[in-house]
Amino acid sequence: MEKNNKNITSRGVDFSAWYNDVIREADLIDYSSVKGSMIIRPYGYAIWENIVAVLDKKFKETGHVNVQMPMFIPESLFNIEKEHVEGFAPEVAWVTHGGDEKLEERMLVRPTSEVLFCDHYKKIIKSYRDLPLLYNQWCTIVRWEKTTRPFLRSREILWQEGHTMHATEKEARFETLQMLDVYTKFQKHYLAIPVITGRKTEKEKFAGAEETYTVEAMMYDGIALQNGTTHYFGTGFAEAFDIKFLDKDHVLKRPYQTSWGVSTRMIGGLIMVHSDDLGLVLPPKIAPIKVGIVPIGDVNNIVGNIENKLKEKDISFYTDNTDKSPGFKFAEAEVKGYPLRLEIGARDLKENKVTIVRRDTLEKIVIINDIDKIVSKIQDLLILVQENLYNQAEIRRNTMMYKANTIAEFKEYVNRSGFILTSWCGNQECEIHVKEKYGLKSRCMPLNDEASDKPCTICGKPGKHKLYYGKQY
Amino acid sequence: MEKNNKNITSRGVDFSAWYNDVIREADLIDYSSVKGSMIIRPYGYAIWENIVAVLDKKFKETGHVNVQMPMFIPESLFNIEKEHVEGFAPEVAWVTHGGDEKLEERMLVRPTSEVLFCDHYKKIIKSYRDLPLLYNQWCTIVRWEKTTRPFLRSREILWQEGHTMHATEKEARFETLQMLDVYTKFQKHYLAIPVITGRKTEKEKFAGAEETYTVEAMMYDGIALQNGTTHYFGTGFAEAFDIKFLDKDHVLKRPYQTSWGVSTRMIGGLIMVHSDDLGLVLPPKIAPIKVGIVPIGDVNNIVGNIENKLKEKDISFYTDNTDKSPGFKFAEAEVKGYPLRLEIGARDLKENKVTIVRRDTLEKIVIINDIDKIVSKIQDLLILVQENLYNQAEIRRNTMMYKANTIAEFKEYVNRSGFILTSWCGNQECEIHVKEKYGLKSRCMPLNDEASDKPCTICGKPGKHKLYYGKQY
Repeated sequence: MEKNNKNITSRGVDFSAWYNDVIREADLIDYSSVKGSMIIRPYGYAIWENIVAVLDKKFKETGHVNVQMPMFIPESLFNIEKEHVEGFAPEVAWVTHGGDEKLEERMLVRPTSEVLFCDHYKKIIKSYRDLPLLYNQWCTIVRWEKTTRPFLRSREILWQEGHTMHATEKEARFETLQMLDVYTKFQKHYLAIPVITGRKTEKEKFAGAEETYTVEAMMYDGIALQNGTTHYFGTGFAEAFDIKFLDKDHVLKRPYQTSWGVSTRMIGGLIMVHSDDLGLVLPPKIAPIKVGIVPIGDVNNIVGNIENKLKEKDISFYTDNTDKSPGFKFAEAEVKGYPLRLEIGARDLKENKVTIVRRDTLEKIVIINDIDKIVSKIQDLLILVQENLYNQAEIRRNTMMYKANTIAEFKEYVNRSGFILTSWCGNQECEIHVKEKYGLKSRCMPLNDEASDKPCTICGKPGKHKLYYGKQY
Repeated sequence: MEKNNKNITSRGVDFSAWYNDVIREADLIDYSSVKGSMIIRPYGYAIWENIVAVLDKKFKETGHVNVQMPMFIPESLFNIEKEHVEGFAPEVAWVTHGGDEKLEERMLVRPTSEVLFCDHYKKIIKSYRDLPLLYNQWCTIVRWEKTTRPFLRSREILWQEGHTMHATEKEARFETLQMLDVYTKFQKHYLAIPVITGRKTEKEKFAGAEETYTVEAMMYDGIALQNGTTHYFGTGFAEAFDIKFLDKDHVLKRPYQTSWGVSTRMIGGLIMVHSDDLGLVLPPKIAPIKVGIVPIGDVNNIVGNIENKLKEKDISFYTDNTDKSPGFKFAEAEVKGYPLRLEIGARDLKENKVTIVRRDTLEKIVIINDIDKIVSKIQDLLILVQENLYNQAEIRRNTMMYKANTIAEFKEYVNRSGFILTSWCGNQECEIHVKEKYGLKSRCMPLNDEASDKPCTICGKPGKHKLYYGKQY
C-alpha cells in the first residue's frame, strides 16, 4: 500500500517543495521577519544538540579544547590575509554604528574566524612548548547570501570551527586528515550518511588555504552536499600575521595551521538522504525521540510501565496523549520521523500483544505484551533501523555513481543525477568547461586514490588526478 | 606564613587591578583587537561549559526546550514595544550593509530577544493547547558598552535567555519565581555564592517588564553584582505584537509572558567572591580541573595509578609534567584555583606518604600512600572545600549587611562597603536621592518579605517596602 501525507509534496514530483514541506511539517524551523535567517524550533534544535554532543566529545577525545572569540572583526584585521578577504568580502554583514555613533572603523560579523584566531595566536605562541594549539569554537557565523534555503544556505549558520597551530608541517597535515576522518565517521556511524572524501581542486578550495579536504554526501536526488571541510593552511596566515615560535633548535619558525568545520547544513543532508513522502526519517543515534508511543483506549497502566523501563534504559520517547485519533497520531509520528512507533491498543492487549512500526521500512512487528521483551525488541530494532538507513543510502548512492573514461561517456552520464568520476589533466580550463557547459562542479579528488593514468576525460590530454563531478546544493 | 603571587596585585591594595591580574594569570581570557570584546580562553570557557551543563539540565528538568532565533533584529520589529526600545536603543550595534549593498532596512544585533520570540509566538500560538511555551536560548548578545570589564561588562555576552508564554497570569508569575529559584539554588549549590533575591523597583526593572526579580550577590569588596534576573511581562508584549489564543472557554485572550537570563557575568562573580592574592579559587562543583597533581622526582608509577583511579571515579585532574620546579608548579596550581593539589614526591614516598593541599584554606594534609585512601580523601575534601567556600562567603557577606532605620544610621553605613537594608516609602524621589547623593543604587525588595511598617529611612514618611541599597558593578 502506497502511503503519503497530504501536507507533503511527493519528493518524486518536486524535490525542493518536498524538502520545504518536510521541514515545516516536522516543526524543524520557522521563517522569521529577519530575511534569510531561520528560527530553529525545539525539535530541529534538539537534533543539533545531539550532533553537538557527539562531535564535541570526539573533538575532546582528540585533544581539542573549546574557546570563544569575538563575533566582530575590525576591517583592518580582516584585510591582513589577501586571498581570504577576496573570498569572503562579497558576503559579509557590516556593523557601522554603535548606538547613535558611527564607528571609527567598521566591523564585519565573522563569516569564519581564521583572522581572529591568528590575532590571538600571535600573542600566545612564543615557544615550541606552546604548540600544538588545538582549539575549537561552537558559534554562529554570518554569510550574506542572496538566496537562502533552510539549513542549506542561510545568512546565519550555527557551526563549529576548529583552528589549530602546529610546530611541524607533518603534524598539521595529520590534523587536517584526522579531522576529515572524524567527520567521515560521524556521518557514517551517526547520521547514517555514506560520504566520499577527498581533496578539493585549486578552484574550489577555501580562500587562503593551501589544501581543502571535503566530505561530499549525495542526496536522494543525486545532487551533492558539501557536508564538512578541513583545511591545511601551511604557514600562509602565520606569515601574514607574523606568528613565530622559538623551536627546540633555538630557531624562530612559522607554525603550521589548520581549520575545519561542519554546520547545521548537516541537518539538511540528514533530511535529503533519509526522509520520504511521509515526512522526516531520522537515524536512531541522532533522533531526539527514539520511540513514539501511541496509546489507543484505556492503556495507561501498561504505557506507564513501559515508559519507566525506557527511562531506565535511557531510550528517549514521546507518548502522544492528545485527544487526536489514532490515525492522526500515527501520521504525526511518521512526520516527526521517530525511528520506532509503539502502538498499544486496548483491543490488542486482550490478545496480549502490542505493535511496533519501523519508520524506515514501515514494517509492523507484532509482539507479545511483555515489558522486557518489548524493550529488548526496541533496542534491537533501533540498531537495525540505524544500519538499514545507512545501507539503503549507500546502495542508492552507488547506483548513481558513474565512471566516465571518455567525453562521450561523460556526456551520457551528465543528464543522469549523481557523481561522475573522471580522469583530469589538472588544467583548470577543463574544470571550468565542465561547469559552464554542463553545470557540474568538481567535488573532489578521492582520498588516498588521487592519481590517474588515464587520459583526461574532458580534453584527452594525459590525466593526472581522478576527479568527481556533480551538481551541488 | 603570608603568601602572595608576584604577578598579582594584592586585593587589599587595588581590588580592580587584582581582578584583572587574576583573570590574566589564570588564563581565563585574552584581550582582542576587537574593542570591548574579550576572548574566552580554554580554561575560562571550560568553566562556562560546566555552568551551561548544569543549568541546561535544570532548565530541561523544569520542562524547557532550547531553540535558536536569528541574531539580527530589523529596526521596525525592534520598534514595536516602546519602553523596550527606549531601554536598549542607546546600546545596540547596527548592521547597515550586506557585502557592498546598503540594506533597505538596518538591523541591530540582538541585545536580548523578546521581540524575536514574540514575532515567532504570534505565528505559532493559536489555542490554549499551544501553551505553555517554555523556550530557552543559549547565544551571544551584544550591548554597545562604553567602558568594559572582562566578564562584568562586555560588548559581547554569552548567556541564556528563557522566554515563556502562559495561558494564565498565575502560571506566568509562578514561572518567574520558579526560575529565580533555579538561579538562586544554582549559585548557592554550585557557585558557592550566597545571594539575596527580590523584586527590583520600578526604576531598576527591565525595559518593558511589569516586574523584574533579581539575584544579587555581594563581592569580596562589598559591592553588589546583579547575577541573574527574571521578568514578568504580563501581556504587554502580547498586546504590542497582537498575540492571542483561543482559550478553553472559547474566548480569545492574551497570553502572559516571562523572560529570564544569566550570563558569563557569573564567572566574574565567582572570581570576586572566592579568589585571593594567590589567584583563582574555584568551587569543586564548577572547577574544570578538581585536582592538580604535582609529581616531584621519579614517581611516574604511582602517579599513573592514581590518575587511573581518578578517571574511574570521574574526578578531573591535571598532572603537571613540565620541567618547571616544584615551587613554580605549586604556584601555578594555586593561580589556576584547582580545589586540591596532590603533591607526590619521591622523598615522601620513602616514608609512604603523600600530601594534599586545599586551595581554599591552603591547609596541608599528609596521608598514607594508599591509592584507595588518597582518592577517598580527595572525594571527602572536595565536598568540604565546596561547603567551606559557601560558608566563608556567607559569613563575610553577613558582616557587610546593615540595617538602617534612620537617615543617621544610613549615613553611618554609607561609607562602609556592603548592603544597607532600609524602609522605603515607595517614592522614586528617595531612591534617586540615595543614588545622587550617596552613589548607591537600590538592589531589591527582599523576596517574600517586602512589606515594611517602619518610617522611610530616607524621608521619614510612612514606609511601604523593605529595600536594599548597595554600590554595584
